[in-house]
Amino acid sequence: MTDTGEPWALTATEALRRIEAGSLSAAQWVASCRERIREREPAIRAWASLDEHVVEAAMTRERRGLGPSIPVGVKDIIDVCGMPTMMGTDFHDPAPATREGGSVALMREAGCMIMGKTVTTELGHLHPGPTRNPRNPRHTPGGSSSGSAAAVADRMVPLCLGTQTSGSVIRPAAYCGVIGYKPTYNDFDKSGILANAPSMDTLGILARSVDDVGLLRRILLEAPTEEIREADLAGLRFGLLTAPPWESADAETRGCLEDFMGQLAARGARRVEVRLDREIPRLLELRRVISGYEFRRSIAFERIHHLDRLSPILREGRLADGLRIGNSEYQSAVREVATLRGRLARTFTEVDILVSPSAPGPAPAMLDTTGEATFNSAWTLAGNPAITLPLFHASNGLPIGGQLVAGLADDERLLSASKGIMGAFGPGDPSSETISSAP
Amino acid sequence: MTDTGEPWALTATEALRRIEAGSLSAAQWVASCRERIREREPAIRAWASLDEHVVEAAMTRERRGLGPSIPVGVKDIIDVCGMPTMMGTDFHDPAPATREGGSVALMREAGCMIMGKTVTTELGHLHPGPTRNPRNPRHTPGGSSSGSAAAVADRMVPLCLGTQTSGSVIRPAAYCGVIGYKPTYNDFDKSGILANAPSMDTLGILARSVDDVGLLRRILLEAPTEEIREADLAGLRFGLLTAPPWESADAETRGCLEDFMGQLAARGARRVEVRLDREIPRLLELRRVISGYEFRRSIAFERIHHLDRLSPILREGRLADGLRIGNSEYQSAVREVATLRGRLARTFTEVDILVSPSAPGPAPAMLDTTGEATFNSAWTLAGNPAITLPLFHASNGLPIGGQLVAGLADDERLLSASKGIMGAFGPGDPSSETISSAP
Repeated sequence: MTDTGEPWALTATEALRRIEAGSLSAAQWVASCRERIREREPAIRAWASLDEHVVEAAMTRERRGLGPSIPVGVKDIIDVCGMPTMMGTDFHDPAPATREGGSVALMREAGCMIMGKTVTTELGHLHPGPTRNPRNPRHTPGGSSSGSAAAVADRMVPLCLGTQTSGSVIRPAAYCGVIGYKPTYNDFDKSGILANAPSMDTLGILARSVDDVGLLRRILLEAPTEEIREADLAGLRFGLLTAPPWESADAETRGCLEDFMGQLAARGARRVEVRLDREIPRLLELRRVISGYEFRRSIAFERIHHLDRLSPILREGRLADGLRIGNSEYQSAVREVATLRGRLARTFTEVDILVSPSAPGPAPAMLDTTGEATFNSAWTLAGNPAITLPLFHASNGLPIGGQLVAGLADDERLLSASKGIMGAFGPGDPSSETISSAP
Repeated sequence: MTDTGEPWALTATEALRRIEAGSLSAAQWVASCRERIREREPAIRAWASLDEHVVEAAMTRERRGLGPSIPVGVKDIIDVCGMPTMMGTDFHDPAPATREGGSVALMREAGCMIMGKTVTTELGHLHPGPTRNPRNPRHTPGGSSSGSAAAVADRMVPLCLGTQTSGSVIRPAAYCGVIGYKPTYNDFDKSGILANAPSMDTLGILARSVDDVGLLRRILLEAPTEEIREADLAGLRFGLLTAPPWESADAETRGCLEDFMGQLAARGARRVEVRLDREIPRLLELRRVISGYEFRRSIAFERIHHLDRLSPILREGRLADGLRIGNSEYQSAVREVATLRGRLARTFTEVDILVSPSAPGPAPAMLDTTGEATFNSAWTLAGNPAITLPLFHASNGLPIGGQLVAGLADDERLLSASKGIMGAFGPGDPSSETISSAP
């Protein structure tokens, strides 16, 4: 249950339950989210564009007996018919897209109502958009899925699509205190999405409950709706990932995770020692090669035709880096990753879930960049499913996420474990807690 | 040298040499290709759209001292600014694209002049476009890169981009009697290209000389221009791939390849016995799962919003197939491919080049579909570089291609070997031979 009677405060699963019970109409739900957006958007700035006809469309669906409408947001590097795809720049074509991502088409088919496009950093890289962190507007919301994380955290919509090439779903979700889920590589379709580094690009979900993650996941997989089973924590083997960059997390974050491992053990979970001290740092090095090389190609259009419109942090950082990498270095990195994936697969025969920080600490007090992806990008490159859960709080009141990682294609177990953990330790609806007032 | 004095008959490498020597201007070359297109297009129908301003643009480049223009064609599933991307359907938005593929931007930067978009089959699948095979208009040109193969074979342009998800570069190149090159997976950027089955989708090159393949390859890799070294065949280990589906090739094709192995041996090449009797058939089975599952997602927009505009062969074949495959079957196939790649890598420590048919035989006498990809798709899934060379002729006069496959990222050796082979056995400019008259 939530701390307010407003439909916008509900998770999607809760709202759908009420709609089924007849105590809420889908059009009311959409209208309530639309109103929440109208009210909060001037402070949060989570949206790149909004569809003004969603309430009308939800009413039409209802009248025609087409089933409920689920209000969602879509990161603005994903094409949605009828809306521009600006990708966090000021020079892309503002004409509405006429073909849309496979994920978007599948969501529409399942009744999702695209409320609008959420703010992305410039081309999914570091240069931030205008979005503020709903927990504290002087701290970054994280990126690149900034608007998606903030919109879900601020309860404007229950669900958003984000994408992750390094840490772009997990990090903003952790900074804004919501759930961020990056599935196994290629689990979700990526058509109609700006390519960043295709070997790592992953479509992900931002939500306020594990059940909502499961709901949208099954829509995107075209699988029948089925509630996430809550895992018995006593039946699972957990390992705390203390390989580098563990020491780069702040003491408070490390303390939260150590405590968490103790609490898991107290519930009967088995703690397994896992050493990946060579593998993780090596994956981080290879990530730099692979994502740099692929990024410089993926944005060849922008750098060749619009170089002067790109931010210095993009031009002088990742792009310059990528342009120094040759094809043979790249291809050899790709092959080494394949070998490392084999090694990680063996690790996941000994442990079910790896636990690590979602980020080095809570959202930093800065708005000119979006923080570090060091705890995420090895897993994005390896392709393993990962989720951040809003389990902890820093002394400054900001949320700290706990990241769980599972073996390749073991997404169902990851979500079941997450549901068990949120049931045991989670704050109920995480975003029912203090949301800062407008900046 | 070619059989005609017209610039359109030159390979790109030859033309650039003449331009450098001052005996040809780039604008003359572009104008000559444009004229060849004008003359031959009514019979061949290789183009989905044409840029009417290329000659003017080449003259402007020349006047400004920006270097030569290289006339090329781009398959119409790849976005090119200023031209529509119709993807072989009649319902996509005919508005000109305003963002283009990274490959296209890189080619422009290097002076390539995009003459137009070449015909693709429907969404890169089997339902054919109007293109005719320049060798015999009653036989399929192959697909899905039909227009690219025909335009190069008919000497309208020296070079085209094509794409291959199963056999869509190698097969049409072999059927039309030109060179088709599919690099190592992910060697070339794929942004701005219709996704078909992203784990297999590969951008490739159609050309009339190995040097031209090398020229465009280095442009796409942003590597300095460097002529392909001609390999000493005596230094190489070749293996004839007689694993299934070898027996499905016609007797004439198998005979050509057996003879070819003898000729290689006569030049000192070492023949190695390679048995991949389990691996190749298994890859073909896994391909059905992976490409079916990914395709049904990639074209979710089309099947959800425009199902009745898709051809029966697409709807009832690959799409229906793909919709029967579940996520866990798909993910387990992906992991099995990773294991098979490891096994193939060990094979390629014992052999440099595998030799196989490019297709079961020469272009079949049919225009309602585009032939079989059985000899190509295992390698597209495995990611190995492959090339078809126009080495042989069937008794009906149609070309038969020989497919060479190398280890992952061993593209340079593949091209060097190809140059050595074309030098020793090739017909010079392959398309200087009989081209049928207009149908």
